[in-house]
Amino acid sequence: MTADWIAIDRTEGRLHAWALGEAGILAETAGRPADAPLNLIAAWLPEGRVTPVIVGGSPEAPLRAVPCPPLGPLVPAPPADPRVEISLVPGLSQRRPSPDLTRSGAIRIAGVLALRPGFDGTICLAGAHSVWAEVSAGEVVSFRGFLTGELDALLATRSTLRDALRSEGFDDAAFDAAVADAIARPEALAARLHGLRAEALLDDLPPDAARARLSGLLIGAELAAARPWWLGREVVILGDEPRTRLYIRALATLGVEPDCLAESDATLAGFIAARALLRGE
Amino acid sequence: MTADWIAIDRTEGRLHAWALGEAGILAETAGRPADAPLNLIAAWLPEGRVTPVIVGGSPEAPLRAVPCPPLGPLVPAPPADPRVEISLVPGLSQRRPSPDLTRSGAIRIAGVLALRPGFDGTICLAGAHSVWAEVSAGEVVSFRGFLTGELDALLATRSTLRDALRSEGFDDAAFDAAVADAIARPEALAARLHGLRAEALLDDLPPDAARARLSGLLIGAELAAARPWWLGREVVILGDEPRTRLYIRALATLGVEPDCLAESDATLAGFIAARALLRGE
Repeated sequence: MTADWIAIDRTEGRLHAWALGEAGILAETAGRPADAPLNLIAAWLPEGRVTPVIVGGSPEAPLRAVPCPPLGPLVPAPPADPRVEISLVPGLSQRRPSPDLTRSGAIRIAGVLALRPGFDGTICLAGAHSVWAEVSAGEVVSFRGFLTGELDALLATRSTLRDALRSEGFDDAAFDAAVADAIARPEALAARLHGLRAEALLDDLPPDAARARLSGLLIGAELAAARPWWLGREVVILGDEPRTRLYIRALATLGVEPDCLAESDATLAGFIAARALLRGE
Repeated sequence: MTADWIAIDRTEGRLHAWALGEAGILAETAGRPADAPLNLIAAWLPEGRVTPVIVGGSPEAPLRAVPCPPLGPLVPAPPADPRVEISLVPGLSQRRPSPDLTRSGAIRIAGVLALRPGFDGTICLAGAHSVWAEVSAGEVVSFRGFLTGELDALLATRSTLRDALRSEGFDDAAFDAAVADAIARPEALAARLHGLRAEALLDDLPPDAARARLSGLLIGAELAAARPWWLGREVVILGDEPRTRLYIRALATLGVEPDCLAESDATLAGFIAARALLRGE
């Protein structure tokens, strides 16, 4: 296998690489965010040839301030290995109305626009850090990131709640009820989290209901804060299952039916758009 | 040194023991919550004598449902060692308006009532898990716990924000601004947390300001949710420095001047009340 080019996608939670050719995906592999990207793709790099590599989500990449198109000129990374020529996809930054930045969002938003040309509305990226982006006329107008997924994982695995939350199952009805609770009184989050253990002990709340309730409280609070992004707007959502499923479920309780795109499809479409930009196409 | 009796206080964050006699405190020591309480006090236990030990905050103790006085009959623990006779202080539970429980709160609330006889109002226990308790006519009417302190520690030490928050200092003005932000829009917590790293990168927010901002956002959200507990009420606050200082500071921005008690004084007064109850005094 000889790849024409390689795409490497870095997010808070993982590193993913695709070897790409005329026919599309030749191979793919995944690693941890802390892994060295070149180690991940070493097997795809023949000697005596320079393979172009496009990296999205890199903390070394510069940031471009919105409003702007999701993709701007790629930035060459310092030469690290004679077998590769690395180009970094800039991230997006925002000063107003609230300081924010997203590194891995740029390539995904570009991908959504590639798959849905002319889309005008909100794009929701549901990952460890979720991002809501307002898109109009091919530009990212503004965006807002939420630490929801990371809070969920920290509380489920590292907090004093973890024993009450240890479950393989997931109780959809408990999730829905928690979403409604959180939307009604989003400010009570820390109190409801404290109450979770009490519910487990006093009300025999089963772990699969407690686990679902945690995600429902956090996603419900996010939706309450993100109301301007989804209310009366067209919404495209993408993300990794199963978190995307939860966002879709929670949005449905609010009467919002988002257009769903597979995250891998959108991410790859974004890299293909970045590759075209790099080649001046 | 021979202790007349020993008090052991267990909270989410630590284990604390006092050796007590006619003259008051003879010795004290601290450990971690996971330590075996008997190991902590072994040096205080002479052979051939049974020392009474009162344990507060134990997960083995039963729970008493509010409304009720903070202290009820102590419960003997199964004999573990011939040198001790262990009595457990029951925790407090609540079914309505929201399921909740506090194990370490009972002894503290009893201590506040011992130090402030006839107190009617709200008691705020500002620890890793903070508790707001409504007290009237010697009874705990209702209470609400918050996971605020634990969230603060998780985010500061275990999250992707930790590098932006690594600081020995604390910027009071940044704390105050964050409290105001959170009270104005408490539902935006997860978004503001996501924005913290952006503020550090884009606005050169120094780590001591970022660290203070994290605590301000979390405590501000708690105060927004706890409004019925402090608005127009007498408030007694106790807790371990420096968290108590932050609550007092945040409450001051809302025009609330709580009566401050040292946590160790109130806890010890609670144990002395429990000891009197045990002896039928």
